Amino acid sequence: MQNLRSHNCSELNLNFIHQKVTLMGWVHSKRDLGGLIFIDIRDNFGITQIVIHPNSSFFNEASQVRQESVIQIKGIVAKREGAINQKIPTGEIEVIADFFQVESPSDILPFPIAHNPKQESEDTRLSYRFLDLRTEKMHRNILFRCQVIRYIREKMHSLGFNEFNTPILTSSSPEGARDFLVPSRLHPGQFYALPQAPQQFKQLLMCSGFDKYFQIAPCFRDEDPRADRAPGEFYQLDVEMSFVTQDDVFNVIEELMIGLFENNQFSQRKILPLSKFQDKYIKTNRKFPCIPWHDAMDKYGIDKPDLRYGLEMQNVEETFAHTQFAVFKNILESKGIIRAIVIPNSAQQSRKFFDDADAYAKDVGLGGLPWLAVKDGEWKGSIAKQLSDAEKKALGNQLKLEPNDTVIFIIGKEKLKSQTAGGKIRNYFAEKLNLKDESSWAFAWIVDFPMYEFNEDEQKIDFSHNPFSMPQGGMEALQNKNPLDILAFQYDLVCNGIELSSGAIRNHRRDVMKKAFEIAGYSESDVENKFGALWNAFAFGAPPHGGIAPGIDRMIMLLLNEPNIREVIAFPLNQKAMDLLMKAPSSVSEKQLKEIHIQLKHE
Amino acid sequence: MQNLRSHNCSELNLNFIHQKVTLMGWVHSKRDLGGLIFIDIRDNFGITQIVIHPNSSFFNEASQVRQESVIQIKGIVAKREGAINQKIPTGEIEVIADFFQVESPSDILPFPIAHNPKQESEDTRLSYRFLDLRTEKMHRNILFRCQVIRYIREKMHSLGFNEFNTPILTSSSPEGARDFLVPSRLHPGQFYALPQAPQQFKQLLMCSGFDKYFQIAPCFRDEDPRADRAPGEFYQLDVEMSFVTQDDVFNVIEELMIGLFENNQFSQRKILPLSKFQDKYIKTNRKFPCIPWHDAMDKYGIDKPDLRYGLEMQNVEETFAHTQFAVFKNILESKGIIRAIVIPNSAQQSRKFFDDADAYAKDVGLGGLPWLAVKDGEWKGSIAKQLSDAEKKALGNQLKLEPNDTVIFIIGKEKLKSQTAGGKIRNYFAEKLNLKDESSWAFAWIVDFPMYEFNEDEQKIDFSHNPFSMPQGGMEALQNKNPLDILAFQYDLVCNGIELSSGAIRNHRRDVMKKAFEIAGYSESDVENKFGALWNAFAFGAPPHGGIAPGIDRMIMLLLNEPNIREVIAFPLNQKAMDLLMKAPSSVSEKQLKEIHIQLKHE
Repeated sequence: MQNLRSHNCSELNLNFIHQKVTLMGWVHSKRDLGGLIFIDIRDNFGITQIVIHPNSSFFNEASQVRQESVIQIKGIVAKREGAINQKIPTGEIEVIADFFQVESPSDILPFPIAHNPKQESEDTRLSYRFLDLRTEKMHRNILFRCQVIRYIREKMHSLGFNEFNTPILTSSSPEGARDFLVPSRLHPGQFYALPQAPQQFKQLLMCSGFDKYFQIAPCFRDEDPRADRAPGEFYQLDVEMSFVTQDDVFNVIEELMIGLFENNQFSQRKILPLSKFQDKYIKTNRKFPCIPWHDAMDKYGIDKPDLRYGLEMQNVEETFAHTQFAVFKNILESKGIIRAIVIPNSAQQSRKFFDDADAYAKDVGLGGLPWLAVKDGEWKGSIAKQLSDAEKKALGNQLKLEPNDTVIFIIGKEKLKSQTAGGKIRNYFAEKLNLKDESSWAFAWIVDFPMYEFNEDEQKIDFSHNPFSMPQGGMEALQNKNPLDILAFQYDLVCNGIELSSGAIRNHRRDVMKKAFEIAGYSESDVENKFGALWNAFAFGAPPHGGIAPGIDRMIMLLLNEPNIREVIAFPLNQKAMDLLMKAPSSVSEKQLKEIHIQLKHE
Repeated sequence: MQNLRSHNCSELNLNFIHQKVTLMGWVHSKRDLGGLIFIDIRDNFGITQIVIHPNSSFFNEASQVRQESVIQIKGIVAKREGAINQKIPTGEIEVIADFFQVESPSDILPFPIAHNPKQESEDTRLSYRFLDLRTEKMHRNILFRCQVIRYIREKMHSLGFNEFNTPILTSSSPEGARDFLVPSRLHPGQFYALPQAPQQFKQLLMCSGFDKYFQIAPCFRDEDPRADRAPGEFYQLDVEMSFVTQDDVFNVIEELMIGLFENNQFSQRKILPLSKFQDKYIKTNRKFPCIPWHDAMDKYGIDKPDLRYGLEMQNVEETFAHTQFAVFKNILESKGIIRAIVIPNSAQQSRKFFDDADAYAKDVGLGGLPWLAVKDGEWKGSIAKQLSDAEKKALGNQLKLEPNDTVIFIIGKEKLKSQTAGGKIRNYFAEKLNLKDESSWAFAWIVDFPMYEFNEDEQKIDFSHNPFSMPQGGMEALQNKNPLDILAFQYDLVCNGIELSSGAIRNHRRDVMKKAFEIAGYSESDVENKFGALWNAFAFGAPPHGGIAPGIDRMIMLLLNEPNIREVIAFPLNQKAMDLLMKAPSSVSEKQLKEIHIQLKHE
């Protein structure tokens, strides 16, 4: 059998002049220029210009061929007579056709491919995803995704990890998000569930003696869709390691992230160097700063701070300890917080600028946004007159205020709520003042998460995050400390204000696990019922282990600066969790339902 | 933080003498030799011998530690005083412990790990899979699987393929095996289905302009379990290519299979060279022989022949065209078949040997197994007296019989049924006579499958295999040929009698597809309803494309010579499709059922 093509559509250049070639691809565009027809033929790799002379037997057929039809052409490579296109590898040549055949014609397109203004609704694009994926941007995005995942795999292998497949038909998780259920045919009335993550399996693999696990793992959560979350399924780089501390996990992930985010193939940005961070967050053995959770909440009002800019909240409660300013005094007497954010060089901003900010502050739950500025050597601002000269002077010293700086105050009686609002204010000013440096990646580890939190509604102690994390200080801490003061070996990796991943050193000891759950109100039999496989495994020699699971889609969105997750997935469900191309979900037959022992419930 | 270990349990050797080291791992074995305790500590990588002196403070603790407990030890590397173990990299050293700590104790084991006689029931092993995976064989099998999959990925990348993820929550397939269904919460009464294979998606990716696709793809079929088939989910190397002929697909797969099956890391066997095959099956551009489906059925009675041995069926109907032997005469008058298998050097076999074979022949549906032998220059055998001398002589010439050969006859009135039984007889003798060469891989392509077959029950024409395959001769063949004579560009890859994969060049043209389905009794709207996404895609310029999908589990079983698929999967469902470790499937709450708008149906 003969090859259907001799070259792809990006291969030919001046080295091929006079050669006879066969190309196949899509009709990208067609121009009829005074008798000559020019067709740009496109494939996965690129575009080549074809010239069809008016005396060709196939001239009429070529003149009528529709865009996006698949054609096969044969001809001779020639130096271009017309304008050279420096942007593409084939830009200096053209192929003079002596054979032309329509292999598969195209109907009239629902939207243009070659120069797509992207004005169609997303649902139209998803209904014709096979056409949408031909557009330059989507084609590039999906190939980019392939390359990122390939890079991650090869890097993880080079770091000594093996990739394991864990089951997709598994059991319903007692904790976490909502499961997708799969009725069992062989076991009437029973259900498999799709894994929300391979959490238990990866820990079981560690208990099975495999040392370093990773998986580009499909995960499933029946949550309501939103822009940055794929409904249904998503992928994470699931990682777990045995005989490690937190630092060992960080070493691996730092090496991976630096390899990926400073790779010319994927990114033109640079990772913000450690020197940009305060000394206290820099550890000599780390590439990324480590910020304790309490500090992150204090300074940034969020556990995934964007560190490309400053505007940290600073505690000024001491400075106002004896203030007569009623608002501040009242806050301090109620054990509330007063935090200041210095906004450099902003005193020249209009009154409206600060009024808008004040309105935004009210939107996010603050009472308002008192401010103070040093302008032309004088104190200005909404509370300039309420504060004493001594207070203003002390404040200036504490915050090292410069001329033209503004200070805004985040105040509130409820600490966590006010901090969180302050985090939003910080982001508000960064956006208004364009402080988000688009040329850098600001990575950081958020560490030392609290193990427990107080559930006000139920007036009880709950796990803050993952109940499987090891409490810092182990059994001793659990027995002797106030639970709300216990920290966990739990960590997040953040980049540019986005949480890329959570991870933890796991609690691998039955005695510690029993005690940790007891504090959160679980009995031993609760633990056994809910997490039986792990609980069992921990009885037969479990290694210290820990891991992390960065979201693949999230990383790709970040690298591509793409806010819509569906732009980085070949065949995503739409925002209503429907696949418009394959028509899923859909009705099934009564026979199918009967086989799996269920019936529909009509409400 | 300090590292929990300085080395793994396979790293230390004479180069490390006198060094202080920290090791962690499982207590593999423990011997108490006249006051000294020897512990073999094990991890993923290997085993190291630890020596504990009687004057150590931790002597008692060490003497009481149970097998499979996780321990941490520190000590000094020393040359072994006792016997050297040449089988392991650490066999010349031991570590004299000066620190010993039980990190996680083990309960009494349900079965031994270190020297596992493998007499437990499979269900016990699966219930404690985390222990079972620590056994030497299972640990090796699963790491072997990781390495094979890694090799395949890297090879496919080096051949220019990209790996794409296709959806796991998709729509129910109208054809094929039974789907697993997933009730939709957001769309009451509707269901997703897990993909039986990403067939439509990979073809859509080709229509989207991506040139070379592969995926280590999870596939789901709700079929009843058996030894060589995982219930629920399995993995295939899913491959699809654009602008290709059958030969292009074969080139890729041959390169992959040779790379894998002749790789010292994975196999000590060799691939049977082309010279072992008849000239007519050897194509100059191929590495594996290409055997037409009709030939395979004629000679081997099966479309996945084991080619490590001969024993081909030979057509001897012409030789007996005028026979007076009533049995043969009757068969030929009924348009039945008479095929001979020559079994070399077997005339010395006992009467019982041939009687047993005769009984087996009856088991597989034949009337019996007439035989003839040339022994000591005379004709012997069950029908020696019924055949004329001329017939015996003609037979001897046709089959080139040598002294001591036996000839057995496969006869029957129904061709396909008799051929199939003959295939089983062929295998029977190969096993009895030990003809299956365990040092070789006999790969072959089975090609030219019939496009259609006659469905006797419904008295209509059906597709033989994949309805999406391109008929050889295209539209012209469909219009002018007897459908039962039309061949498809459909192929199987077989190895040592196992079907590794099916594949095809697809039918990418709407006109040809419409006609092909019409012959099998489908209207255009049937096609549109059943395969809407592909049918639509083919209207907008579809490239010629084709692919294949070798089973990953199947390849690993073959390489490991492992007949039970559950021995090559870390966490398989058992033969009742249950995960005994995670307790899946299981009951779920009424609330969960209500959310997804279903209820149980009690029969």
